[in-house]
Amino acid sequence: MPNNRSETDSLGLVEVSAEALYGAQTARAIKNFPISGLRANPALIRALAMIKLAAAEANQSLGLITPEQGSAIQQAACEIVDGQHHEHFVVDVFQAGAGVSLHMNANEVIANRAGQILGEPLGTYKRVHPNDHVNYGQSTNDVFPSAMRLSVLLALRELYPVLDDLAGSFHAKAEEFRDVLKAGRTHMQDATPITLGQEFAAYAVAVRKAAENIRAQAQGLMELGLGGSAVGTGLNTHPEYRARAIANLARISGFDLKPAADMRWVMQSNAPMADVSAALRTLALEMIRISNDLRLLSSGPNTGMNEIHLPSLQPGSSIMPGKVNPVLAELTAMVAFQVIGNDTATAYAVQAGQLELNVMMPAMTHNTLQSITILTSTLRELDHRCIRGLTANRDRCAHYAASTIALATALNPYIGYAKAAALVKESVATGKSIVALARENGLLTEEQIAEILDPKNMTEPHAKQP
Amino acid sequence: MPNNRSETDSLGLVEVSAEALYGAQTARAIKNFPISGLRANPALIRALAMIKLAAAEANQSLGLITPEQGSAIQQAACEIVDGQHHEHFVVDVFQAGAGVSLHMNANEVIANRAGQILGEPLGTYKRVHPNDHVNYGQSTNDVFPSAMRLSVLLALRELYPVLDDLAGSFHAKAEEFRDVLKAGRTHMQDATPITLGQEFAAYAVAVRKAAENIRAQAQGLMELGLGGSAVGTGLNTHPEYRARAIANLARISGFDLKPAADMRWVMQSNAPMADVSAALRTLALEMIRISNDLRLLSSGPNTGMNEIHLPSLQPGSSIMPGKVNPVLAELTAMVAFQVIGNDTATAYAVQAGQLELNVMMPAMTHNTLQSITILTSTLRELDHRCIRGLTANRDRCAHYAASTIALATALNPYIGYAKAAALVKESVATGKSIVALARENGLLTEEQIAEILDPKNMTEPHAKQP
Amino acid sequence: MPNNRSETDSLGLVEVSAEALYGAQTARAIKNFPISGLRANPALIRALAMIKLAAAEANQSLGLITPEQGSAIQQAACEIVDGQHHEHFVVDVFQAGAGVSLHMNANEVIANRAGQILGEPLGTYKRVHPNDHVNYGQSTNDVFPSAMRLSVLLALRELYPVLDDLAGSFHAKAEEFRDVLKAGRTHMQDATPITLGQEFAAYAVAVRKAAENIRAQAQGLMELGLGGSAVGTGLNTHPEYRARAIANLARISGFDLKPAADMRWVMQSNAPMADVSAALRTLALEMIRISNDLRLLSSGPNTGMNEIHLPSLQPGSSIMPGKVNPVLAELTAMVAFQVIGNDTATAYAVQAGQLELNVMMPAMTHNTLQSITILTSTLRELDHRCIRGLTANRDRCAHYAASTIALATALNPYIGYAKAAALVKESVATGKSIVALARENGLLTEEQIAEILDPKNMTEPHAKQP
Amino acid sequence: MPNNRSETDSLGLVEVSAEALYGAQTARAIKNFPISGLRANPALIRALAMIKLAAAEANQSLGLITPEQGSAIQQAACEIVDGQHHEHFVVDVFQAGAGVSLHMNANEVIANRAGQILGEPLGTYKRVHPNDHVNYGQSTNDVFPSAMRLSVLLALRELYPVLDDLAGSFHAKAEEFRDVLKAGRTHMQDATPITLGQEFAAYAVAVRKAAENIRAQAQGLMELGLGGSAVGTGLNTHPEYRARAIANLARISGFDLKPAADMRWVMQSNAPMADVSAALRTLALEMIRISNDLRLLSSGPNTGMNEIHLPSLQPGSSIMPGKVNPVLAELTAMVAFQVIGNDTATAYAVQAGQLELNVMMPAMTHNTLQSITILTSTLRELDHRCIRGLTANRDRCAHYAASTIALATALNPYIGYAKAAALVKESVATGKSIVALARENGLLTEEQIAEILDPKNMTEPHAKQP
Repeated sequence: MPNNRSETDSLGLVEVSAEALYGAQTARAIKNFPISGLRANPALIRALAMIKLAAAEANQSLGLITPEQGSAIQQAACEIVDGQHHEHFVVDVFQAGAGVSLHMNANEVIANRAGQILGEPLGTYKRVHPNDHVNYGQSTNDVFPSAMRLSVLLALRELYPVLDDLAGSFHAKAEEFRDVLKAGRTHMQDATPITLGQEFAAYAVAVRKAAENIRAQAQGLMELGLGGSAVGTGLNTHPEYRARAIANLARISGFDLKPAADMRWVMQSNAPMADVSAALRTLALEMIRISNDLRLLSSGPNTGMNEIHLPSLQPGSSIMPGKVNPVLAELTAMVAFQVIGNDTATAYAVQAGQLELNVMMPAMTHNTLQSITILTSTLRELDHRCIRGLTANRDRCAHYAASTIALATALNPYIGYAKAAALVKESVATGKSIVALARENGLLTEEQIAEILDPKNMTEPHAKQP
Repeated sequence: MPNNRSETDSLGLVEVSAEALYGAQTARAIKNFPISGLRANPALIRALAMIKLAAAEANQSLGLITPEQGSAIQQAACEIVDGQHHEHFVVDVFQAGAGVSLHMNANEVIANRAGQILGEPLGTYKRVHPNDHVNYGQSTNDVFPSAMRLSVLLALRELYPVLDDLAGSFHAKAEEFRDVLKAGRTHMQDATPITLGQEFAAYAVAVRKAAENIRAQAQGLMELGLGGSAVGTGLNTHPEYRARAIANLARISGFDLKPAADMRWVMQSNAPMADVSAALRTLALEMIRISNDLRLLSSGPNTGMNEIHLPSLQPGSSIMPGKVNPVLAELTAMVAFQVIGNDTATAYAVQAGQLELNVMMPAMTHNTLQSITILTSTLRELDHRCIRGLTANRDRCAHYAASTIALATALNPYIGYAKAAALVKESVATGKSIVALARENGLLTEEQIAEILDPKNMTEPHAKQP
Repeated sequence: MPNNRSETDSLGLVEVSAEALYGAQTARAIKNFPISGLRANPALIRALAMIKLAAAEANQSLGLITPEQGSAIQQAACEIVDGQHHEHFVVDVFQAGAGVSLHMNANEVIANRAGQILGEPLGTYKRVHPNDHVNYGQSTNDVFPSAMRLSVLLALRELYPVLDDLAGSFHAKAEEFRDVLKAGRTHMQDATPITLGQEFAAYAVAVRKAAENIRAQAQGLMELGLGGSAVGTGLNTHPEYRARAIANLARISGFDLKPAADMRWVMQSNAPMADVSAALRTLALEMIRISNDLRLLSSGPNTGMNEIHLPSLQPGSSIMPGKVNPVLAELTAMVAFQVIGNDTATAYAVQAGQLELNVMMPAMTHNTLQSITILTSTLRELDHRCIRGLTANRDRCAHYAASTIALATALNPYIGYAKAAALVKESVATGKSIVALARENGLLTEEQIAEILDPKNMTEPHAKQP
Repeated sequence: MPNNRSETDSLGLVEVSAEALYGAQTARAIKNFPISGLRANPALIRALAMIKLAAAEANQSLGLITPEQGSAIQQAACEIVDGQHHEHFVVDVFQAGAGVSLHMNANEVIANRAGQILGEPLGTYKRVHPNDHVNYGQSTNDVFPSAMRLSVLLALRELYPVLDDLAGSFHAKAEEFRDVLKAGRTHMQDATPITLGQEFAAYAVAVRKAAENIRAQAQGLMELGLGGSAVGTGLNTHPEYRARAIANLARISGFDLKPAADMRWVMQSNAPMADVSAALRTLALEMIRISNDLRLLSSGPNTGMNEIHLPSLQPGSSIMPGKVNPVLAELTAMVAFQVIGNDTATAYAVQAGQLELNVMMPAMTHNTLQSITILTSTLRELDHRCIRGLTANRDRCAHYAASTIALATALNPYIGYAKAAALVKESVATGKSIVALARENGLLTEEQIAEILDPKNMTEPHAKQP
């Protein structure tokens, strides 16, 4: 094959595409893992490059690789951090256990690019070798868990402002709808009055709380096992390497990274991945609930609740003309289901560790990064193209506020639960309103009626009337 | 301890409650597994006893236990099948791997009861020994998987008629509501007309199909590994034992049981448990959907759809007088969630087999039997106390049928999708009905309007009008 | 924008890329759903085209579209079935509820391509309109559920031979290892002898049974709601359309498709998707178990069981030279976790139907098709590159067969469980073998020892020795 | 029925068992929900009583109930907090949405017991009425979410010391095994040396970290919506009630409870339940992993790794004499599967809220409390009866440390990865040890061999030898 070069690894000769920055082991991985066509998330590629950069700085400073090697590796890694060469990261997301293949892909790309910088032909590895120099004192077993954690932190950095904005938009609607009185509903049945603004304010809190919890759980990803090498003992590392490498990485990435309390634990266990995945799941659970509410409240126009109106984004039906569907609310639910499914896959992966290592990291990484990515894009669209443009149907809301049978609840302190229940029964049977019946039965004075049965007064605590 | 007797097993002396039919190993299990307080489902106890009965018959017929032993064991086992002595099955559902403890509980109760029948004091085991006679040629590893499968078949026998009845009740409502015209809703938005009967007929089909699939998947449980003994090789069994024991068990249980195609597979693998659990899950998914529909359709009375009325079973609120909630629909959803959760636990258990055996059977058994039990009781109540008594709000339904904006869909073949869409826009903007606008705009003749825009005609296919 | 054309839909003007075969609604979808970058699986695109082909044939035969329209639509659809124009299907897998966007993408591509065939410029739709002709008598609500089901059937057609081959390879290994005697292990503890061939035969059965169940569950996908149009009532369809369209589709696809028993049910409910997804999950559960066994059996070489040797596919470690990992077994587990996660997402989607429609179909479709795709590619690699090349370490197996303490089990029928247990205790304490102790204690004659304690004789049933 | 009394609620007459402290609505619930036979966890009953106590204090202090009523209610509630009358809480765990039935059960028991204290016959409710006095200013919708949260906090109080003890026991073993050198294993293949102590220290960290995260997530349960009454607006409550009631409850329970930031959110959303459930799931995932390691390390005795010995708790097999299984490790895995399944059910429940309320709380409560309960009992047994008594097989460990092929890793910095890999190949092919080959090939001096290839030196970082 004229466009190939030959390389050798410990298992023998391998053909590599002539212009590829990757090498023999990556070429094996292409052949071994033709699984999904999906490639690594850019956040993971960047995280690997940041680690190689941090490690090279540390090893160079300790005299374990030469300044020439060190600076070439650092330049190559920087380019990848900046978004270059990502097309040479070709390993499928479904690959060898522990991510050995993608890790070697990174070592090879950096070694070749560093060699190139130093004037060597691709595939030579004389001046910069993927294992002996790029990977000096490192192992997939300490690098990949660290890269996985860092990649999630990098991806989350994109999600946070979207969540903050979404909470902000719900909050703005809460202000806008603060005086839109409507009926509450519990068990999908008429309940006591509430304002549309109170409902939307709660959605804002839901998003804000979910975001806070993701941030809190992401703290667990800051503890890194980099420096543990093969089994978390630090074999082949200099005693000062670990601290230096992680300090470098903290500086490079901008995160408050720190050495793990126990290097064996952080290699055995990926509990923080399960924790973050679960926090994303809670966000998904909340978004299902909220998107379902949006679909209920906007149902109609003529056969549903029709309390709010969502912006029209596209014709809703290929057959029913003029129909407009709550597409972004539906999308949000589907994306949330995916996040929950991805969390299930992640949990399976997290429990499958054996002895010194959990080899199922590529599964956790792919699922968690996908969840963050699709939540980020979906909630951004939901915010911009749905929430910000939604409007209240004030007439319909007012109608419900006046007609809910639960207005009778306000009578409890005055006539007791049993009599109030009898009144409701009569209202449902006769169609007369609670107010009319209260008046008719002489249960309250007009003054009391005006005060006690005003729906607006039911939207906050009040001292009992004399 | 005066109310105890002492017994010995291979690990030494154990105190056993003096009147207990169980023995040393059960006493150890009580001490080892004080976990949940939940005891074995009666279906599992009966299944174990049926197997001991079938095995004793086979071993006696092959001369491997004496007629005296054989008939005492059989009498003891029969009593348990008939529901006696269940209080002596005291092992927690969360117990030793593979169900060794519950299996020994069964061996010990039968040995002691058989000894009692033969006039021996409890705990003697001279004439009938739990391991050497009751368990002759058997192992937990072939008995427990068989008992698990059989117990599920026994429990399902209670569920089937409930499902058949529920489908029947939905079908009866479909007949009753066959002429109740209403608006369809897709994406929670106004869609073209349908009858309430058509909706309920579909619920009947959903239940019937789910039941059919459970029955089909339960077939996989009919293949038994009984006779495989310790590792599926049949060590310590007579060459004819396996066929005889399973034939006996088929007769005793009334199921079409048969020897597994491969005795090692049926011991390694519990795939049929995952399959049955999944079929129960599909039923649960359908019941969530249907119960959600019931809650939507009965929402109101004044602030919701209010198309149907569910029987009032209890006051709906501790504070809102006169409120009535869809309690059985809500219960159904909660029980369905539990079934899905139990299925998750079962799936984890099924994948956790190692080499010759999957020791996680107690987890699968508990979860699957609980799912069947709670589905049986819940769907029985849902049928009897909710579906059978529900009524249609015909006026409300008729109102929706006439007002859904999707009536315009019927105009597509005559005026095209684009013009029909414009009509709908006008209807929503002006509040005029589709019929009024069609007339106003002279799009159709009065005859066509009567034919094409009649909601009733939209509930089935029609040749295009000339 | 010079490379754009303008189109109009019911919501107004839209810019469309000038050369695109898609139109206005697809262009809206590109803008509305910039979510994951993942596009529809080819099986889904082909299924949609097959349906449009079948519908056009039916409508043409019923005189509802012209022969010119009919044949242009059919030619366009055929090209897509054959794999052309897929690059014009640009809607993200995460999109509008019910798949309206992808469905309109198909309608538009076919309308434009048909127009092109008839000599019309793109975006004209005069002679072939996406809604009025390509979609005549159809709705997303009957087309998408049918396309989803058909796409899964198409994808499964690729999986079946892979499963058959994998079962065949396990079976071939079972034959090859039929005389490799080894120790069984239950609870990870020494158990009675078995052959390596018996273990592998069971793996073959596991795969075969899982495949059978997938095939059985896929039968449920054969019932189609095509012809139900907007809400399953067949509005705007000719009374003969449904039967003709489905017969056409059966012929085109080669599957035994049939009209659903109830058209409302098949639109409300996607239970068959949950059933198929669950059958894929069971395959995944079995493959986790088997891949875990392969990793246990090949563990070592010097610190593990080392009973089998897997082919070396790539260097196993970036730091540990000479290490070779069970990469395809690990990959299999990770892919299986993904399938389980995808099944979770699918189950959530299936339960989320409301009233006439379940809009969550895009989620089900994406997850199920991905599961099938990655199972197909992974199990093909596992078969070809791992199972077929694996070899037994016969010496190690023989050593274990001779040394397992469970040899004593064979003594039960002769000396009873209690005495046999005492023998094992002595063996563990002294390090003497069971055979040596049996001889030493004079428990058996030499002849009996040769017969009863021969591991080979323990791998199948035997009549008790006199 | 002579042993019954008659009571009336808003739906009519109901028969109640004459001696029952509960009343009409509980009697209806018994009839409506004959589902599982499982009754409320004591922690939930106590939490409800604590809330009723706190509310009565607040309402009495605000003059809304009389001192007589207040002090009778408080005495009754105190008795329940102290464990009395629990047998009168008879509602099934699967019940009406939102827990209305169990809440009314509590109101009725307290009203009757308070009446009894005041000298009234059961069922009278003249002086203390369940709705008007016990439930004054309260609703299921603010009481049940608060009781659910508080019950989880109460149950967790039992789990924490068990987790602390378990971590302590792992830590003690880590100290005991600090000098037990062994081979590490990654991908189940020979890896570089490690100490058994290092492994057990990591288990201690895993448990400690999981416990910390549960504690952190439980903070979210401290925010209560008590005072929100029907829909979170505080209708029928005094403006000062909410703050007083929650302050009382904090004092009574000993937790740092506080009013929720938003009363609508805390009624709509149960996100903190999902968060705590997920934190329990992470503990479960870790315990599966650790219990699996224990089973691997104790596998054998003659056909497995046999590095550690677990205490013998019961005979391991009904057929294989002398077999001892890792029963508590197996139990731990099964309980962990249940916790994961319960978490799935909880997540489904959490996403199913609609508008003002999530009625699925009984499902969340049951699952979460069961998970905590069985984790508490299981991990206590695991700690006391397994971890504390386990011992190391030092000889076996030493043998592995000397024989792992990964010793060659230490040569990388001296001879490079490629040459070291060749050495390993030779070792596997010839059976010669790495040390022997290093010596034979003259790759290192004797001094270097002693220093570099000493397994002990590989268990921590070292500066490169000159």
